[in-house]
Amino acid sequence: MTFEDAASAIAAAGRRMDAMGWVPATAGNISIRLAQDEIAITCSGRHKGLMTAADVMAVDAAGAPREAGARSSYETLLHCGIYRRFAGAGAVLHGHSLANTVLSRRAGTSIRLAGYELLKAFPGGSTHDTAVDLPVFDNDQDIPRLQQAIDALWDDAPGAPPGYVIRGHGVYVWGADMNAAMTRLEALEFMLLCHLEEGRHSS
Amino acid sequence: MTFEDAASAIAAAGRRMDAMGWVPATAGNISIRLAQDEIAITCSGRHKGLMTAADVMAVDAAGAPREAGARSSYETLLHCGIYRRFAGAGAVLHGHSLANTVLSRRAGTSIRLAGYELLKAFPGGSTHDTAVDLPVFDNDQDIPRLQQAIDALWDDAPGAPPGYVIRGHGVYVWGADMNAAMTRLEALEFMLLCHLEEGRHSS
Amino acid sequence: MTFEDAASAIAAAGRRMDAMGWVPATAGNISIRLAQDEIAITCSGRHKGLMTAADVMAVDAAGAPREAGARSSYETLLHCGIYRRFAGAGAVLHGHSLANTVLSRRAGTSIRLAGYELLKAFPGGSTHDTAVDLPVFDNDQDIPRLQQAIDALWDDAPGAPPGYVIRGHGVYVWGADMNAAMTRLEALEFMLLCHLEEGRHSS
Amino acid sequence: MTFEDAASAIAAAGRRMDAMGWVPATAGNISIRLAQDEIAITCSGRHKGLMTAADVMAVDAAGAPREAGARSSYETLLHCGIYRRFAGAGAVLHGHSLANTVLSRRAGTSIRLAGYELLKAFPGGSTHDTAVDLPVFDNDQDIPRLQQAIDALWDDAPGAPPGYVIRGHGVYVWGADMNAAMTRLEALEFMLLCHLEEGRHSS
Repeated sequence: MTFEDAASAIAAAGRRMDAMGWVPATAGNISIRLAQDEIAITCSGRHKGLMTAADVMAVDAAGAPREAGARSSYETLLHCGIYRRFAGAGAVLHGHSLANTVLSRRAGTSIRLAGYELLKAFPGGSTHDTAVDLPVFDNDQDIPRLQQAIDALWDDAPGAPPGYVIRGHGVYVWGADMNAAMTRLEALEFMLLCHLEEGRHSS
Repeated sequence: MTFEDAASAIAAAGRRMDAMGWVPATAGNISIRLAQDEIAITCSGRHKGLMTAADVMAVDAAGAPREAGARSSYETLLHCGIYRRFAGAGAVLHGHSLANTVLSRRAGTSIRLAGYELLKAFPGGSTHDTAVDLPVFDNDQDIPRLQQAIDALWDDAPGAPPGYVIRGHGVYVWGADMNAAMTRLEALEFMLLCHLEEGRHSS
Repeated sequence: MTFEDAASAIAAAGRRMDAMGWVPATAGNISIRLAQDEIAITCSGRHKGLMTAADVMAVDAAGAPREAGARSSYETLLHCGIYRRFAGAGAVLHGHSLANTVLSRRAGTSIRLAGYELLKAFPGGSTHDTAVDLPVFDNDQDIPRLQQAIDALWDDAPGAPPGYVIRGHGVYVWGADMNAAMTRLEALEFMLLCHLEEGRHSS
Repeated sequence: MTFEDAASAIAAAGRRMDAMGWVPATAGNISIRLAQDEIAITCSGRHKGLMTAADVMAVDAAGAPREAGARSSYETLLHCGIYRRFAGAGAVLHGHSLANTVLSRRAGTSIRLAGYELLKAFPGGSTHDTAVDLPVFDNDQDIPRLQQAIDALWDDAPGAPPGYVIRGHGVYVWGADMNAAMTRLEALEFMLLCHLEEGRHSS
């Protein structure tokens, strides 16, 4: 995939996430892995509803910009952390939804989703009769330190699902390519919204 | 109706269902009966918001693809089951909404909708002063077995409404043609959303 | 205003109401008074999201079609009832929203809206520091009988607001022209949604 | 910035706010400061979803129209009050959302938002580990008197955030330019919606 194609796919994903209400203000960031040491990622501080390919830039596997002067998303290192750990990750999406924000603020260290047909969008999910425990990390403006906490969990739980939530902040989801990542994000946000609704009823 | 016209109508219905939020990820499937032994149906795993006529294929009344290599929706046999039972069914819609997912997870074997003006979208509904008991089936990845359970209910309850819900999964609705099926789906989802809202209040 | 201009304005209003989620299935109907004895109104059973001027027809003040063969909305007589009673009414909107449906099902004979800035969209509303009691009528498929009940209330309460709700069915709102009617409908639906939300909290 | 560019930016902001559901009926108003004594602002009573640059006019710093006959938004003086007090304010947005309306009706003199990542959209917000106390003023149709109450609070609390809510009415937010103001509004409305949702759960 060329950088140009990746930039277009990222911009389209941004506009879709905006239409879904998952990237308020300048929230959210999106990337595609182009090669072992090259990632296309959203520039810092752009509104996702107005994105074009010009709002996408290239960084290396350590998150350093390929072009002088360009500034990538504040959370670029979290994208790099996912690509470094998971060879099969080809695209990463990060968004802030009502459901992932509110649920993570009241959750402990994970959110359990069980019995939904859309769990089939997660690995091993050939059935709905399963559960996914989505890890929840405390929010931290020190991104390298946050990535360390995430790596520590992955070291301990190699079967962790391809996604996690940062408390009061947002969700990260990834897949083999942009289509797979978006499918997973839509499935996850739908289940989180159902989970939120069920919490209303039982309260 | 030609296959081409059916494929266009199916794609338009998919985009409408996506705009309504009823087909997250690659959820949902849609079909039109073209002839006694020919059904146009969505291909497996496509996003409904991006659908074009190229995402539609033909199967026979038993669900076998007309073209080698094409793979139809995982739940094709449920569409076939509806067409086999109901001579008047010309189009079938399946979607996953917040309301049908959450309500079916907490329901018993049916969901009762009563007193809504939009019940007129169901057979015999020349008045709002009636009720529809929408059957709820347990989810099952074994589609032939699920269809057996559905057939068993239809054998016992010949007056069952033209729709049912699979628990934690989604709704099936049908009508004489695509317009009739979509009208019924919109009426049903609206009443389910009202029913969900009333459950919030009374809790 | 010509019939052609009215038909275009009605179609645009229908598409707006569909985008707001207020006309599920083929719900809702819309009219504009063209002259003392001529009303442009939506044809029966059309989807409002797909409306064009071709989905609009002319009836006389008693609701009789001007053209043989055309069938106007089932509730045409309720539009006629409004125009007959209120000389200043130039356009009428009827829609089914989640809020007006759920609130009217649990209401008595009226819904009180108080203290909202948007009450200024109602007559006498130069301030928010007021209240509107929106009449709620029991639903009835016998439209002339329903209109009699509405007329009886108007006889008793000449200061009734330019709108009412039919229980479990939908809202009617009118104004001097289509812009005024739509402004009032949007204001009313917004306040009803707030009222519904406040009912959730206090439960 | 020319008046023409400001009018286009204001119209685009109006259409965005309409798409978000924040300007029902003819609610909301929007302005950009063009010079020390010149403000571009929405005309009175226009629907924001249909806005074009023709719905924007110029007023001076005291709110007087530059052109005879034109009438600016009823709340023009609140915009002027913001520009007079804050030299860094370049654009002001006012909208009515479900969340800001319902929360302000049940609030005391402020709404506290704490722990959200999107608090970074407010001054001093290099971290989520902070709180913003959004002032809430009682609604008043006497706009100069309302502005006096606002000025009194600003005199007492020079660190007040760049936004406030009028009870049962709507929110005001501002920023250095339209992009900054819209980013702040989107962040604020998202947090208010989360806050509203959390109130549902705890009730």
